[in-house]
Amino acid sequence: MKSALTALGMLAELYFKRRPGCWKMLAVAVCMVLLAGLQAQDLQGHVSVILLGATGDLAKKYLWQGLFQLYLDEVGKGYSFSFHGAALTSTKQGQEFVAKVLESLSCPEDVAPERCAELRGRFQQRSQYRRLRTSEDYMALSKDIEAQLQHEGLREAGRIFYFSVPPFAYADIARSINSSCRPGPGAWLRVVLEKPFGHDRLSAQQLATELRSFFQEEEMYRVDHYLGKQAVAQILPFRDQNRKALDGLWNRHHVERVEIIMKETVDAEGRTGFYEEYGVIRDVLQNHLTEILTLVAMELPYNVSSSEAVLRHKLQAFQALRGLHKDSAVLGQYQAYSGQVRREQQKPDSFHSLTPTFAGILVHMDNLRWEGVPFILMSGKALDERVGYVRILFRNQAYCAQTETRWVADQSQCLPRQIVFYIGHGELGSPAVLVSRNLFRPFLPSGSWKEVEDRPGLRLFGRPLSDFYAYSPVREQDAYSVLISHIFHGRKDSFITTENLLASWAFWTPLLDSLAHEAPRLYPGGAENGHLLDFEFTGTQLRFSQQQPEQLVPGPGSAPSPSDFQVLQSKYRDSPLISAWPEELIAKLADDIEATAMRAVRRFGEFHLALSGGSSPVPLFQQLATRHYGFPWAHTHLWLVDERCVPLRDPESNFQGLQAHLLQHIRVPYYNVHPMPVHLHQRLCAEEDQGAQMYASEISALVTNSSFDLVLLGMGTDGHTASLFPQSPAGLEGPQPVVLTRSPSKPHQRMSLSLPLINRARKVAILVMGRMKREITLLVSRVGHEPKKWPISGVLPSSGQLVWYMDYEAFLG
Amino acid sequence: MKSALTALGMLAELYFKRRPGCWKMLAVAVCMVLLAGLQAQDLQGHVSVILLGATGDLAKKYLWQGLFQLYLDEVGKGYSFSFHGAALTSTKQGQEFVAKVLESLSCPEDVAPERCAELRGRFQQRSQYRRLRTSEDYMALSKDIEAQLQHEGLREAGRIFYFSVPPFAYADIARSINSSCRPGPGAWLRVVLEKPFGHDRLSAQQLATELRSFFQEEEMYRVDHYLGKQAVAQILPFRDQNRKALDGLWNRHHVERVEIIMKETVDAEGRTGFYEEYGVIRDVLQNHLTEILTLVAMELPYNVSSSEAVLRHKLQAFQALRGLHKDSAVLGQYQAYSGQVRREQQKPDSFHSLTPTFAGILVHMDNLRWEGVPFILMSGKALDERVGYVRILFRNQAYCAQTETRWVADQSQCLPRQIVFYIGHGELGSPAVLVSRNLFRPFLPSGSWKEVEDRPGLRLFGRPLSDFYAYSPVREQDAYSVLISHIFHGRKDSFITTENLLASWAFWTPLLDSLAHEAPRLYPGGAENGHLLDFEFTGTQLRFSQQQPEQLVPGPGSAPSPSDFQVLQSKYRDSPLISAWPEELIAKLADDIEATAMRAVRRFGEFHLALSGGSSPVPLFQQLATRHYGFPWAHTHLWLVDERCVPLRDPESNFQGLQAHLLQHIRVPYYNVHPMPVHLHQRLCAEEDQGAQMYASEISALVTNSSFDLVLLGMGTDGHTASLFPQSPAGLEGPQPVVLTRSPSKPHQRMSLSLPLINRARKVAILVMGRMKREITLLVSRVGHEPKKWPISGVLPSSGQLVWYMDYEAFLG
Repeated sequence: MKSALTALGMLAELYFKRRPGCWKMLAVAVCMVLLAGLQAQDLQGHVSVILLGATGDLAKKYLWQGLFQLYLDEVGKGYSFSFHGAALTSTKQGQEFVAKVLESLSCPEDVAPERCAELRGRFQQRSQYRRLRTSEDYMALSKDIEAQLQHEGLREAGRIFYFSVPPFAYADIARSINSSCRPGPGAWLRVVLEKPFGHDRLSAQQLATELRSFFQEEEMYRVDHYLGKQAVAQILPFRDQNRKALDGLWNRHHVERVEIIMKETVDAEGRTGFYEEYGVIRDVLQNHLTEILTLVAMELPYNVSSSEAVLRHKLQAFQALRGLHKDSAVLGQYQAYSGQVRREQQKPDSFHSLTPTFAGILVHMDNLRWEGVPFILMSGKALDERVGYVRILFRNQAYCAQTETRWVADQSQCLPRQIVFYIGHGELGSPAVLVSRNLFRPFLPSGSWKEVEDRPGLRLFGRPLSDFYAYSPVREQDAYSVLISHIFHGRKDSFITTENLLASWAFWTPLLDSLAHEAPRLYPGGAENGHLLDFEFTGTQLRFSQQQPEQLVPGPGSAPSPSDFQVLQSKYRDSPLISAWPEELIAKLADDIEATAMRAVRRFGEFHLALSGGSSPVPLFQQLATRHYGFPWAHTHLWLVDERCVPLRDPESNFQGLQAHLLQHIRVPYYNVHPMPVHLHQRLCAEEDQGAQMYASEISALVTNSSFDLVLLGMGTDGHTASLFPQSPAGLEGPQPVVLTRSPSKPHQRMSLSLPLINRARKVAILVMGRMKREITLLVSRVGHEPKKWPISGVLPSSGQLVWYMDYEAFLG
Repeated sequence: MKSALTALGMLAELYFKRRPGCWKMLAVAVCMVLLAGLQAQDLQGHVSVILLGATGDLAKKYLWQGLFQLYLDEVGKGYSFSFHGAALTSTKQGQEFVAKVLESLSCPEDVAPERCAELRGRFQQRSQYRRLRTSEDYMALSKDIEAQLQHEGLREAGRIFYFSVPPFAYADIARSINSSCRPGPGAWLRVVLEKPFGHDRLSAQQLATELRSFFQEEEMYRVDHYLGKQAVAQILPFRDQNRKALDGLWNRHHVERVEIIMKETVDAEGRTGFYEEYGVIRDVLQNHLTEILTLVAMELPYNVSSSEAVLRHKLQAFQALRGLHKDSAVLGQYQAYSGQVRREQQKPDSFHSLTPTFAGILVHMDNLRWEGVPFILMSGKALDERVGYVRILFRNQAYCAQTETRWVADQSQCLPRQIVFYIGHGELGSPAVLVSRNLFRPFLPSGSWKEVEDRPGLRLFGRPLSDFYAYSPVREQDAYSVLISHIFHGRKDSFITTENLLASWAFWTPLLDSLAHEAPRLYPGGAENGHLLDFEFTGTQLRFSQQQPEQLVPGPGSAPSPSDFQVLQSKYRDSPLISAWPEELIAKLADDIEATAMRAVRRFGEFHLALSGGSSPVPLFQQLATRHYGFPWAHTHLWLVDERCVPLRDPESNFQGLQAHLLQHIRVPYYNVHPMPVHLHQRLCAEEDQGAQMYASEISALVTNSSFDLVLLGMGTDGHTASLFPQSPAGLEGPQPVVLTRSPSKPHQRMSLSLPLINRARKVAILVMGRMKREITLLVSRVGHEPKKWPISGVLPSSGQLVWYMDYEAFLG
């Protein structure tokens, strides 16, 4: 009683200071408080919630209910509320709509119907609809709020503007709010934004910049409603509360894979206008599944309730994500989709959409905790079931000495060990946290989670439910109710900050760009999909498990596939030419190199291989690294054909390409690797450092007769090879085995083996790939020995063999 | 007919040449051949088989039957036979025994009983028992064979001596055979040996040397009867005939694990005399399971029927095996065993055996094909079932988009994919080759393998039998029959060559030695074992999944083992001292280095580690290479503390030690490795090449403040450290960070970090091990800062930490 009176005194003082003429208000306030029997109510202040888009679907389905829940939870704790539904709809229609929605609001299960009707009645009293179109409308709204505050003698705590409107409307609304609807000093403003937050990195950045011109970062609450789903919201607390058990397990040594899955049975019918622009990756993966990914993968902060720490760790997780490429994804589209788009968007019969309605993505993280662990993200429409989950599957590193039939679920380390955050739906039908009994008994706060009763016959993830410690929420809550409560309490860790958003777009945009013209695989939908959408990975590459069936409508991907063609053998410039599709060509070249290596090692005990840099040999390096188990690496010396004058670990360095794509996968003794000494005495390719001479003498000391067993060359569109360019005479003739040269393109300085040294090799292979090389290939086929114009024409081993390897695109155009 | 006469002519000519006086013999031979209706019979010559130990168990159970089978298979193809059962048993008893065994011989299923009786009768006629004890007995045997040949006019093709006797009897018998039982020129000798082939590497080597003094390598056939088991014998042909399908799969990228299992339900009762000396590793793993391992793991020869190629590839597989250590094994002993030994061997009640009757072993191979793939070998007596199999389980690298209940066995890549060579017994009850239907349809030769009919309800390896393509032999054959046939046909690839045997012992002996005093876990036997014998691995370490229960009888393993001792922490020269037994000390130091590395990488993104050469750090390198999976190698820079002025690849080079024991097992990026430039311009440590200055500037360019995160030093018996010697002032003070020095021992020229540079480090660890260091340790503990007398006394990081690591021998003497 005493503290209430003190508070009252402070309140009076405040009113007095701010509005010296308001003695009457003060009197009214005092009376109201006294009349209310000095309840704590209203002492925390008044909150106005403005729901923009109040007549929309989301509002109808979730948001009004969430606001009602907020009202029920908080009104007894000293807050007062007013709720303003707003939209472009006319006042009358809007009022009718809102009235209808409010009628249908429900109370928690434990509230008696009469009491519920009473509470709903109070909520209805505090809720009204108003049309908001012009900036004047916003000014009027603000005035009305202020008048109400004044009239009721309330202190303003804050205002929540909930944007449930399309993004194109954001800017105008934001401007109006910023200019005329900010609450008075001491009260907070919170604007709640719903996705989509842009379409790619650039548009997200633009939208973010625009919003930042109206609002402070801390004022903005970007909703990803998955973060309000109870199982998702439990991920960090679970990791925190089970630290001891998880500490040794939550890493690449123990986790086999992580699956983050959101499957839908519905399709996009009726929403194709939106869907055509976004597709499944933007709709589900870039936001919901990525957020979950960071919750699972991030380093666990000491204090998981510190929003700031959580956000910092999330951003670190983003930094560790390995970049995605076209092969990181498989895409599908349910067969009826294009028809639906044609109907709904009035497209011609010839229209076929490329928008994916299904995507599987393989994500890897380049950090010590997760290196090598596949994170599988998958979502799709028109699938066989509706379910969402995050599944962490642990490696089986046990051997069980008894027959399988004797394995006991909570003792056998050979039965699957997994932790599942079951987001909802599916066979279980409710959110849950599942932990295999052979793993550990988890701790979950008993106030909010209870053990699930066994349902005999129910199997989840390959095991009966009874194999798990299974917990579900004591009270199931809708995600929006959870999030609206979090907004109210300023819990920013449940929302997407600008940095977080841009980090996610930075991750996804390159993939989206690279997939823009890919034809998704068509699937019939539902159970009929069979194994059509199953996918598998080797390394970082994803592909569908089943061969592409006949396209049911002609997709643009109907070009003949590589394996349809044989490897062709013929002649080019009087030397043997091997021609094939890229994949076969690389396979053949790798086989030939291995055969040459084996022969050399058998005869001489070692194999000297000089490799070119650039992008063409990358698939060759990968082929050699991952398919040639018998390659005599321990006896192979690796030399560089040429090098850019940059430090060895520079991404531009040829050696860096060799390191990344070959060396790090194989075991060549350190002293068998011979990078070019382009970086001496902290300088790059300085004549006086004599790097070229050093390399030449290293070659002459180790390579018999300075005759490499195999030199691999490429050919530039200008006819250059190694780093011997038409514009520069160095290295085309003369006694210097290794030379410094100048390239027309950056970095200009190069070091290169000379033509005479190359021509001493026992074997020279020239790899030419891609349509870009078509012209020079044609030209060089006709010219004679003119190395000054076309250095490549000077490649002619004096006593060795020359073989050309060209893919069909380079050779046939 | 013509060719038969030609052959006869040749035969005649042969006889004439060799035994000019044998006109009569020739006539007899001609007559016999003519009488036999010019059948091909006998033209191939006569084979005498001498079964030594003809009255033993093995002979009774398998060998006589195998010989009968040989007779049935070959007698129609031009050979004639005589079979001599021999033993120490008296002639009468032996004859009775053999007669009884011969009566019980059975024919293949498709032979009618009367025909079988007839065939058995002929075999009995050609078989006889004789006592063989003295060398005279062997001479008599040989004379009898010759007489028989002469009498029957037969050409001798060869002689097979089958040693089914204990190994202690080998030498005498071998000597007798060699001196008096060799066949005449042109005919072959084959001696067949049964395991045990020694008890460890040394005894196997001695036995092999002894045997080699009597027989040529090609004359010896060491039997491992597992190689005669049909499923085992099929491994290589299967790999060969399914090359195309297996080519991409048979490697670390696709294989999750390989299990090589032999479980028995019987125990060792009645055989404890033998078993006490051998135990399960020598009895089953060193031979049977290891042979299977090599068949699975070896590179597949082009021509799998070339014995020579198979043996060469097997030996290569042995070379790739990573050495086993104590932690590679878990051992068990069924509870009744010690009691059985006490009873059978008349041991006192206090006797407890340490012999393992159960072992699980984790094997790794250090080659590109298998690196990181666990090979699990397990065998035991008194287990819950009798079964043998090799199981290759493939990784699940798929995500299946449908609910699990919709997965179809031959299409879903998410169901287990495995290839099993089912050796026999178990639920299936017969040998088989199983291939998961979602893998590929295997080829098996239809003449000898047929598809198994489905047995609904039968599950194998977690899946119904119908999930597999399953094949079993058309005709089940006993392993000994198969091997006897292979001996007859000289197929040496089914036998253990001396090299193969010694390679296997070389692999197993260190483990056996290190386990000699380990107490096995006791287990009750049968189904009651529960999960007691389940084991699991982290990295290369194996341990039982369940905590050790109370020992049911006290094991003699109660001598204090290293881990019973604490690591001692105290002070030495006012710095922290960590002291322990060598193994713990190295483990502790490696842990500390990893912790330092993790901290440095977390804080600075990189870790600069300077390592000393010599032999002391070798176990440390091995520890780091094989036990520290989380070590941030990708972010670690490796520097040398000192180097000998020899080429980098010289065995004396410190860098070469680093390469052999550390670098080749881990993945440090090439440019993070910093050998000292002792070899420039084809000269070693020439002042004018400025190698020391180069290294110093490399350090100053890459290491912040030239302050290494950790410097590992040793201490010489003269008090030197790094390559800073009492006799030479270089590097003890002054501005030069890297110096050339002179060692009193060869090679004299050295390069070394200077004392001032070392003292800039954040942390310095000094590792001192072995009794040899006792004196200097004592001395240095008493001296002050006198680096000119004892360079080690000058190690005192200016702002970093110094820690001494000494083993008890160095510290306590």
